Amino acid sequence: MLTFIGLGLYDERSITVEGREALADADRAVAEFYTSHLVGASVEELESYHGIDIEVRDRAGIEQHPGDLLDAAADEHVAFLTAGDTMISTTHVDLRLRAMERGIDTRVIHGVTAQTAASGLTGLQNYRFGKAVTLPFPYAHGAEGLPASVVESIGANRERGLHTLVYLDIKADRGEYMTADVAAAMLAEDWADVLGVAVARAGSPDPVVAADRLSALAERDFGDPLHLLVIPGDLHHVESDALATLGDAPAEVLGENER
Amino acid sequence: MLTFIGLGLYDERSITVEGREALADADRAVAEFYTSHLVGASVEELESYHGIDIEVRDRAGIEQHPGDLLDAAADEHVAFLTAGDTMISTTHVDLRLRAMERGIDTRVIHGVTAQTAASGLTGLQNYRFGKAVTLPFPYAHGAEGLPASVVESIGANRERGLHTLVYLDIKADRGEYMTADVAAAMLAEDWADVLGVAVARAGSPDPVVAADRLSALAERDFGDPLHLLVIPGDLHHVESDALATLGDAPAEVLGENER
Repeated sequence: MLTFIGLGLYDERSITVEGREALADADRAVAEFYTSHLVGASVEELESYHGIDIEVRDRAGIEQHPGDLLDAAADEHVAFLTAGDTMISTTHVDLRLRAMERGIDTRVIHGVTAQTAASGLTGLQNYRFGKAVTLPFPYAHGAEGLPASVVESIGANRERGLHTLVYLDIKADRGEYMTADVAAAMLAEDWADVLGVAVARAGSPDPVVAADRLSALAERDFGDPLHLLVIPGDLHHVESDALATLGDAPAEVLGENER
Repeated sequence: MLTFIGLGLYDERSITVEGREALADADRAVAEFYTSHLVGASVEELESYHGIDIEVRDRAGIEQHPGDLLDAAADEHVAFLTAGDTMISTTHVDLRLRAMERGIDTRVIHGVTAQTAASGLTGLQNYRFGKAVTLPFPYAHGAEGLPASVVESIGANRERGLHTLVYLDIKADRGEYMTADVAAAMLAEDWADVLGVAVARAGSPDPVVAADRLSALAERDFGDPLHLLVIPGDLHHVESDALATLGDAPAEVLGENER
């Protein structure tokens, strides 16, 4: 049996009760922290809290060599752990399909996602978000400026009055996490005066939400990772009030987005 | 202090460990189950599991008369509970803002949302979803046929190759939950041959995923609520494999969406 368990966003207590019980019931636990990771708990803290050894695998260990993991799941109850929700990544969907092909029982125990937190912490309504984008580091993207797909998606959402969630690049193996000020500076090349919302440490006890023009957010420091950025579209009045109260947005900037 | 706690999708164990601890720490618990509710646990079961009395309020008790709730939160630790995530509804964002205006400390403990589950269970990638829509009962909508906004949003997403999550109407006070077959029949008026994915009982131990043309889904019975419907856009090959394996999608229908 292979149980995919989302650990949620922050520390060892961000998992659901159901997930915790399934993990306690597992014979073996395997985790990957290259797509995201928990800022509030080390692997040792997770192991001690849940009373189980956790084998952390890198990308190659999951994507290219999943054979022994599937072999183990054919005989034992294996828990597969990631930060957030396990099915956010195509790789993990692929792992589930391979397990099912081999007749292995699979189960998904969902975790809280950055998308849920970004909407909840900013007060921006989740059904008013359009397609999300990921902003890569320039060296990873391999060219100057913003990727055309990012510009196109944000532009198409703005045209329809929709918000855009911007995931920020993570290179966990290099310890590099793009921060919201860096992301705002990159986006300010095209949209300096446009309203943005930085969200730092979503899911933690001290999340930060800050709303201002992208050029202004680019000058700020939002502290420790992980960060996200939201580019709001048209604002409903409660959304506008929320950005003023929760994110200290200047009234004249909000006014430009109110409909 | 006012702590907003999302209970997650299914039963008393869908809450996060952090949420459970905060609820145990609260002096009073207030819940609303009119925007959604837990199918797998009654209020009595929640009360017994968490060891706290839960006062369930209707819409008027939250939206029009939140005064005594805010009075209580000024003196005591009040937990405000909803199914899924608490901040999905504008009303609850408004409640948080009112509390902050009165100088009351607030905190949000996120819950797993239907959006996360719909993406995770179907294998459709979350960053390939466009704007979500809600399909209302015809009597609630007050007109024949589909609301223009629903048709427009699904059409705009399809044009961009994006998936659409269709939330199905809930009238909890009347015990009415729109099922995926009814929703598929409504959408089949415009899109009979289009691929749809029904998701029943997301977050429960026995979720059902079924992918087929909307006209075919309209003839099926997916059992107990809650249900969701997804209208996929262009399919990546892993997404296509996932709908075949997880949702028994006919190959010829998938072929029309593969890009």
